[in-house]
Amino acid sequence: MTEGSDDIQALIAMMARLPGLGPRSARRIVLQLIRKRGQNMTQMAQLLGRVAQNSRECAVCGNITDREVCGICTDPERATGEICVVQDVADLWALERGQAFRGRYHVLGGTLSALDDIGPDDLGIPALLTRVGDERISEVILALNATVDGQTTAHYIADALEGAAVKVTGLAQGVPIGGELDYLDDGTISAALRARRSL
Amino acid sequence: MTEGSDDIQALIAMMARLPGLGPRSARRIVLQLIRKRGQNMTQMAQLLGRVAQNSRECAVCGNITDREVCGICTDPERATGEICVVQDVADLWALERGQAFRGRYHVLGGTLSALDDIGPDDLGIPALLTRVGDERISEVILALNATVDGQTTAHYIADALEGAAVKVTGLAQGVPIGGELDYLDDGTISAALRARRSL
Ligand SMILES: [Zn+2]
Ligand SMILES: [Zn+2]
Repeated sequence: MTEGSDDIQALIAMMARLPGLGPRSARRIVLQLIRKRGQNMTQMAQLLGRVAQNSRECAVCGNITDREVCGICTDPERATGEICVVQDVADLWALERGQAFRGRYHVLGGTLSALDDIGPDDLGIPALLTRVGDERISEVILALNATVDGQTTAHYIADALEGAAVKVTGLAQGVPIGGELDYLDDGTISAALRARRSL
Repeated sequence: MTEGSDDIQALIAMMARLPGLGPRSARRIVLQLIRKRGQNMTQMAQLLGRVAQNSRECAVCGNITDREVCGICTDPERATGEICVVQDVADLWALERGQAFRGRYHVLGGTLSALDDIGPDDLGIPALLTRVGDERISEVILALNATVDGQTTAHYIADALEGAAVKVTGLAQGVPIGGELDYLDDGTISAALRARRSL
């Protein structure tokens, strides 16, 4: 029983499997929690329990919510007519922090991948196509990663929407704000140069 | 309500304050927990709750335990007569993983620091001196960090034990196993050279 108690060891082992953590960081976190325990740790335990109990995917868009349909899908202030397609809930959260988009979302939960046997059905792409018709969508914005998998998925969706009376757009590529050219990969620089605009 | 629900936001905010984490890694962890929720997350919540409830410091050595006195202090197989002094419970765990020491420990919980107003009483050094007498200790091993604060603390304890009939030792310094000289700081190389041994 090296690490305090069986519970402590089990907690460390479980935390060590979380993304970005390992045994060493899990040990440091658990020790810190124990040191400042009392209210904080009990509160975290309760929050975890409630989130585990209540979190689910929005029945419409796939966002994480504690209701049947998420706050974005039910917000009457949000523009209907525009759907922003993202790979992951983390991307939806990032866009929301940016506050640039006031429409609704569709979370794929991944990208197409022959290797991992992930097809259109696994990503809710048929549901997206249905939404485009039912919700009278005028624009689908494909906010997918600028990776091979992301762009393959974007092309698949764009193809599937051909014929539907809907504009399909993608995010602009270019130099990130504050980005130093010297630190960008060559592909980004080339893409930014090709998409140059007059000032 | 950008991030799912108030509970999810609170959980992310709380996790972001843990050592080595920040908002981004906390978001990734919470999303991962939600994705693989059900048993795992509920189990983690229960573990956290139990650890918060049951963890305490060993009344003898300061190790983290779920009992009044820890498993090491009560293990009859462990050598009495030797106390290994460490700064932190994490160091005790590291030594136990190495399985090189079979005596008992004394956890200081920090180092002497005039700047942070941490004195001998805050580190349980009087309790250590009492243990040395009461438990008939023959050797005190100061396994403290090779930092200025660690070594100041080691010297303070060594001075305080002068006159007691006890051997006071420190960890050997040298090239870590697998260490490449090119990557070591100069102080370590010099110390290893001075402490060279015949082969
Ligand atoms: Zn939704
Ligand atoms: Zn103990």
